[in-house]
Amino acid sequence: MLQNIRVVLVNTSHPGNIGGAARAMKNMGLSRLVLVDPLDFPSPEADARASGADDVLAGTQVVATLEEALVGCNLVLGTSARDRRLPWPLVDPRECGAKVIEEAAQGMEIALVFGREHAGLTNEELQRCHFHVHIPSNPDFSSLNLAAAVQVLAYEVRMAWLAVEGQAPKVQKPEASTEELATMDEMERFYEHLEKTLVEIGFLDPQKPRHLMPRLRRLYGRSSVNRSEMSILRGILTETQKVARGEPHKRKDQ
Amino acid sequence: MLQNIRVVLVNTSHPGNIGGAARAMKNMGLSRLVLVDPLDFPSPEADARASGADDVLAGTQVVATLEEALVGCNLVLGTSARDRRLPWPLVDPRECGAKVIEEAAQGMEIALVFGREHAGLTNEELQRCHFHVHIPSNPDFSSLNLAAAVQVLAYEVRMAWLAVEGQAPKVQKPEASTEELATMDEMERFYEHLEKTLVEIGFLDPQKPRHLMPRLRRLYGRSSVNRSEMSILRGILTETQKVARGEPHKRKDQ
Repeated sequence: MLQNIRVVLVNTSHPGNIGGAARAMKNMGLSRLVLVDPLDFPSPEADARASGADDVLAGTQVVATLEEALVGCNLVLGTSARDRRLPWPLVDPRECGAKVIEEAAQGMEIALVFGREHAGLTNEELQRCHFHVHIPSNPDFSSLNLAAAVQVLAYEVRMAWLAVEGQAPKVQKPEASTEELATMDEMERFYEHLEKTLVEIGFLDPQKPRHLMPRLRRLYGRSSVNRSEMSILRGILTETQKVARGEPHKRKDQ
Repeated sequence: MLQNIRVVLVNTSHPGNIGGAARAMKNMGLSRLVLVDPLDFPSPEADARASGADDVLAGTQVVATLEEALVGCNLVLGTSARDRRLPWPLVDPRECGAKVIEEAAQGMEIALVFGREHAGLTNEELQRCHFHVHIPSNPDFSSLNLAAAVQVLAYEVRMAWLAVEGQAPKVQKPEASTEELATMDEMERFYEHLEKTLVEIGFLDPQKPRHLMPRLRRLYGRSSVNRSEMSILRGILTETQKVARGEPHKRKDQ
């Protein structure tokens, strides 16, 4: 179950933090580390701070964009400071752990995303997350070391996992009740299609986007869209485009 | 209440860990650090890793023995690996946090004691503790970095403190706190508008509705749509209808 969970570090500056994160992960039983455009990796400093978590570092995947890091993910949680202009579903680390294990138990793929040492995640990156996680901290000194933040979330994941593992073997939920969720890349393709369609019908002015796409991302992101719903939504967009382009469509004049 | 809690590090080898511990403490609202016979302190490495928790380092008390570090304490909890010859009351970090705050609220003085980087606490030192705290970890890779261990316990102390203070980090229900949700009748009018539009673009055949509307109701119903999102969705439908009806709409031909 823990192998469904990847830790994604975005634009990390200090290789020591990558090593520290790898060690914290392995301590808590996590093994999949993905680095988005790290400043300095591989590095002897990362090896030193990993302190034996060499297998995690050796298996680390390095990619160029957050989008690549999230391919195949069903649930994405990103760490965030509390105050954001754009309100977003917010959980604390404990709720994060519970949610991660609940979804991992259903076979879902999950990403925990951590931002840059000083600047965190950008608003655009945060909008790719289903949930934001805020680690409660001293308001006057709120920024945790990156590896320490990974440690806290990985610890809560392990606590939630132990609580589930400690129980009698779980009765698998009936297939019907758990339709497979759309993956992150399917959601991205949907948002691209939606944006294009909104431009074509004249609702979205690319010159004045008015936060329209972030708002729609937030709306659909909250809803945990499953695959059959996704194909309905894509079908609606395709038909709308046909209408907008004056192509023959299914409409019958009554 | 948090000022009744001291963190005691015994025989720390690496000054970086002292700095990391100071940062983790200050992040979680703790301020009293006591070092028992550290190998190298003060040190620029400690300052660097403290990353702004200079006041914690400046106020650090350096003593020669654990006994001195514990003067005045009513409750002492020491970190420990799970398997010890000596059976002792054992708690996990969450129970530790609850216990610490319960006692601190009564005005008690509490110490959280952490051992050496590689060897932990000796049996003699462990016997000075009322409780042992074990951080659950991967049995094959169980030794946490010292600053990471301080982070986990300090985090649990803060969580317990927040719960008592009544300011436990609240889950921000999607929008509920900041933006008003659409009412049930607004949702109904939206579904009517959606259905009409889907018929007009030819996506929904009223003769063969294929459970389309119930599925869309379930999708949007899950999402707790707020009023500003509702007006976006209604706007999209209105523009789509104009396109379907061949009415002039906002689209500019590029």
